[in-house]
Amino acid sequence: MIYRIHVIIMKSFSDRLLGEILKKRNPSIIGLDPDMAKMPASLLEYFRDKEKDMFEAAGRCILEFNKRIIDSIHDIVPAVKLQSAFYEQCGPAGFRAFLGTAEYARRKGLIVVGDVKRSDIGNSTMAYSNAYLGKVPLFGSLEPVYDLDAVTVNPYLGSDGIKPFVEDCRKYSKGIFVLVRTSNPSSSELQDLGSGGVTVSEAVARLVNRLGEGMIGESGYSPVGAVVGANRKRLASRLRKAMPRSIFLVPGFGAQGGSAKDAVNFFDERGLGAVIHAARSVIFAYEKSGKGEDYREAARAAAESMRDDIVKAMKGSGKCPWQANSKL
Amino acid sequence: MIYRIHVIIMKSFSDRLLGEILKKRNPSIIGLDPDMAKMPASLLEYFRDKEKDMFEAAGRCILEFNKRIIDSIHDIVPAVKLQSAFYEQCGPAGFRAFLGTAEYARRKGLIVVGDVKRSDIGNSTMAYSNAYLGKVPLFGSLEPVYDLDAVTVNPYLGSDGIKPFVEDCRKYSKGIFVLVRTSNPSSSELQDLGSGGVTVSEAVARLVNRLGEGMIGESGYSPVGAVVGANRKRLASRLRKAMPRSIFLVPGFGAQGGSAKDAVNFFDERGLGAVIHAARSVIFAYEKSGKGEDYREAARAAAESMRDDIVKAMKGSGKCPWQANSKL
Repeated sequence: MIYRIHVIIMKSFSDRLLGEILKKRNPSIIGLDPDMAKMPASLLEYFRDKEKDMFEAAGRCILEFNKRIIDSIHDIVPAVKLQSAFYEQCGPAGFRAFLGTAEYARRKGLIVVGDVKRSDIGNSTMAYSNAYLGKVPLFGSLEPVYDLDAVTVNPYLGSDGIKPFVEDCRKYSKGIFVLVRTSNPSSSELQDLGSGGVTVSEAVARLVNRLGEGMIGESGYSPVGAVVGANRKRLASRLRKAMPRSIFLVPGFGAQGGSAKDAVNFFDERGLGAVIHAARSVIFAYEKSGKGEDYREAARAAAESMRDDIVKAMKGSGKCPWQANSKL
Repeated sequence: MIYRIHVIIMKSFSDRLLGEILKKRNPSIIGLDPDMAKMPASLLEYFRDKEKDMFEAAGRCILEFNKRIIDSIHDIVPAVKLQSAFYEQCGPAGFRAFLGTAEYARRKGLIVVGDVKRSDIGNSTMAYSNAYLGKVPLFGSLEPVYDLDAVTVNPYLGSDGIKPFVEDCRKYSKGIFVLVRTSNPSSSELQDLGSGGVTVSEAVARLVNRLGEGMIGESGYSPVGAVVGANRKRLASRLRKAMPRSIFLVPGFGAQGGSAKDAVNFFDERGLGAVIHAARSVIFAYEKSGKGEDYREAARAAAESMRDDIVKAMKGSGKCPWQANSKL
C-alpha cells in the first residue's frame, strides 16, 4: 500500500509580497478606489443604459473599470489595494464588485490588500477577520469569503481588536497593516499624544512589532505590517527602529503630494520593507493626460512612471535590491 | 396664483432618540448581531435546505431571524444596533440582509444604528458617510443607500476622519457615536495614554464635544454622541463633564457583565443622555431559557427584563424622567 502525504507549505505573506516586488522590480501598490465621480464617461453611459437599477449599474461599472485597469497593469505591478468605502457606497452591489475585483486580481497574479480599516472587540473582530482573511463557519463547514491577502486594521481598541487578524495571518498565511501614523492633517490630534516620551503612534508601533514576533519569514519580515503616511518622513527612521520586522504600507504618493525621494526613507538599507501606494494619480490618470487618451493606457503609463521615479530614487540613494552592487 | 411652500423640519437625531426613549419608557438599544453559530436550529435547517448557495442561505436566515426579533420587541424598545461584522462575514448576501434589516426596523418605528466603526481620510470617509448616513452621487443624481439613523465612528485618524459624518448629521438629521472609551480589556493600551493629565479618551471626548457644537437639539443634546463601555463607571462623571451635550451609547450590559446599577452612572441627573446596549443576552436568550422556548418569546422576555432592571435602578437613584417627582 502506498501512502501519499501532500504537504503544501504556503509562503508567508511578507515573503510573497517582497518576492513579487523583487520579481517585478517595483515596490508599488496601486489603489483600486473606484470613485464614481471620476469614472470614464463611456463606461458610465454604457452601464446606465444597460441596467435599470442604479446600484447594479454602478457595481457593474466598477467591476468592468477595475478589470480593465488590472489588465493594463498586472504585469508590472506586484499588488493592488481596494479602498472599501468606494465599494460600500454602492450598497450590496458594491460589495459584489469588491469580491469580483479581488477574485480577478488574484487570478492575474496580484497580491490583494483590502483597505477596510476594521477592528472591533471579541466575536465581532473575529467575524471581520473571518470575512476578509480567514474562513467563516457556516452550516457546519468553513468557507472563505473575500479571501484577501491582507487588510488594514485600526488600532484604537488595542491588541484585542487586532489579535484575531494576527491569528488568521498565522493560520492562512495572510497579512495585516495596522494604522500607525496616517498621512492626513488631523492625524496628529491623537497619534502624537503621549506620555513618558512615547507617543500613541509609537505605542502602536511597539504593539505591531510584538504582535509579529515568532512569524518572521525568510525575508526577515513579519506579516504584521504598518501604515505610515509618505509625508511622515521625519518619523520614518524612528518608526523603522520600533518595527524592524514590519513592512510599511506608505500611502500619500502622487495625488496626496508625497515624492519618490520621500518614499525612499521608508525602505530598509537593502531597499526592502516598504510598499508605496498611489491610487487616483494612476487609475484616473486619463483625466490629466492628452484629450481622448484611453484610461487603460493612461493608467499603465502612470504606473510605469511611478515605478521609474521610485526606482530612480532608490538607486540614487544606494537602496535598490536589484542593482548590481546591492547588499542582497 | 397660489404658491405652496412645503417646509419639512426634521427633528434632530438626539431629540428623536430621546423622544422614543421617553415614549417607550425604556433607555435601551438592542444589538441585532446575527452570529450564525447561535442561530436557532430550526431556522438554520430551513434555509440550508431551501438555498443551494450557502451565503445566500445565511443572508436569508439572518434577515428572517432579525425580522422575527424585531416583531417581538419593536413595541417596547426604542432602537436597534446592527453589528456590521456579522453581516459582512456572509459576503454580499450579508450586506443585503443588513439593508433589509435596516429597512424593516425603520418601518417598525425603530431608530437604527449601524455599528460600523468606520473612519478614513478625505474622499474615503465621505464615501463611508454617504453610504451609511447620507446620499451617494450616482449617474447625476443623489441616492440614499443604507440611510441609517446613526453610525459608530472610530477616532484614530482625528477630526478629518469624523467631519464628513458630522456634516451629514447636519444635512440629514442623523447621528454618530464616536468610540471614546471601549469596554474591552485591552482598550487601556491606547485610550489611557496621554500627556499633561489628558488621556487619549479624554482628548477624544473634547473633540466629540467640539464637533457637536451648534447642533444642540431641544433635548439639550447634540447628534455627536460617544461610545463609553458600561464597565467604565469610574470614568463616567469625568467623561460626562467633558461631553455634557453628547448621548452616551453604553455597550457591555448583559453578556459582557455590566449591571443596571453601573448603567445608571451614565445618565444625566434628569435620567437622560444615555442608551444602554445589550445584544446576545437578548436576541439569543433562548439558549439559556427553558428547553423548547421560542426564540422570539425568549427575546421579548429578556428585553422586558433588561428594561425593568434599568428602570428600577434609575428610580432607585432618583434619575427617572417618567417618575412622578422627575425634574423633567
